[in-house]
Amino acid sequence: MQIAILGTGRVGSALGIRWATHGHQVTYGAQQPDSEEVRKLVEKSGPNATATTVSDAGASSQIVVLAIPWNVTKEVLDSIGPLDGKLLIDCINPIKGDFSGLELGDATSAAEEIAAWAPDAKVVKAFNTVSDASMVNPVYDGQKASMFYCGDDEEAKATVKQLTEDVDMEPVDAGSLKNARYLESLAMLYIHLAIFGGWGAECAFRMVKR
Amino acid sequence: MQIAILGTGRVGSALGIRWATHGHQVTYGAQQPDSEEVRKLVEKSGPNATATTVSDAGASSQIVVLAIPWNVTKEVLDSIGPLDGKLLIDCINPIKGDFSGLELGDATSAAEEIAAWAPDAKVVKAFNTVSDASMVNPVYDGQKASMFYCGDDEEAKATVKQLTEDVDMEPVDAGSLKNARYLESLAMLYIHLAIFGGWGAECAFRMVKR
Repeated sequence: MQIAILGTGRVGSALGIRWATHGHQVTYGAQQPDSEEVRKLVEKSGPNATATTVSDAGASSQIVVLAIPWNVTKEVLDSIGPLDGKLLIDCINPIKGDFSGLELGDATSAAEEIAAWAPDAKVVKAFNTVSDASMVNPVYDGQKASMFYCGDDEEAKATVKQLTEDVDMEPVDAGSLKNARYLESLAMLYIHLAIFGGWGAECAFRMVKR
Repeated sequence: MQIAILGTGRVGSALGIRWATHGHQVTYGAQQPDSEEVRKLVEKSGPNATATTVSDAGASSQIVVLAIPWNVTKEVLDSIGPLDGKLLIDCINPIKGDFSGLELGDATSAAEEIAAWAPDAKVVKAFNTVSDASMVNPVYDGQKASMFYCGDDEEAKATVKQLTEDVDMEPVDAGSLKNARYLESLAMLYIHLAIFGGWGAECAFRMVKR
């Protein structure tokens, strides 16, 4: 698949390297695509990866991964042109600067706001409840980290499911996009545990079942 | 420990049987303590369990487990007299009747409302993100279900931790009571997966780590 990853921070890098190594075509959208940092990321990602500007990357791909800060999200969406039918994979957590909570209440979510801003796109909330460390190495003692995702378009969700399996995580269908409210709250719990609870980033949620 | 469990539904029953069997003294607080159903529950719980009215059970114990519906919670708290220093273990999820969401926004939580109503009590949010099936049998292929708990009193939390270990679940300290907002959202995610996602109740969240 041809995937644009907007953002070359920890999440964008972790997913990009994994997907590119798996054989997907990855285009990083970076604020400074010619920087040393981005050049190294592309090199590390191998022959399937390139980098360009955020707007060019977003415009050129039918699958767009949002791995950017919440406060620039609307501006980035506006910059990448028509979104008709694109799959937007939203990894964003609208977290307050002090990690004390979410910018949005439970009456909405980043994913729903994004869907309202990009009504022609297919938005799937995903990859927001796992650390980049888990994206890099999602298997814990033989147990895969679960990756919860939700959205309103089944075909788009099937794609995300495949992309999840491609990074060795266990996809868990969490229903409609409205449930992003719970996934964004789940991320807050994760963040609390990782940062304030002493767990660090080398941990993950996993659904166990009989 | 002497534990009052208010509510003899699935959660109250599951915890009561496990704790009583483990050697704790359990008093069920039931709407109809003389009913056949409650009599059977007490019998199943063994010699360490008794049943009485909700108000008597709540009044007689320093550890009070709230396993009642959200819509009667304030009334029940008001009925059990002084709460000074009691440990209230809040297993409640303030879920809308149609399971479509939480009655409360993310600006508060059932646990925080309870703490405001019972300012002299020590409130710990706990046992609200696991199914009763997981309470009955919390070990999945050798992996313990995680039980997230949060509160503002460390001694009270230590007690809840012990009670969690006593039912073979893995306690995960989720911080201050304010984080009940996330635990209540996590419960919504669980409920979604169990009811609408086809997972059923024989599943649980587990924190995996390296």
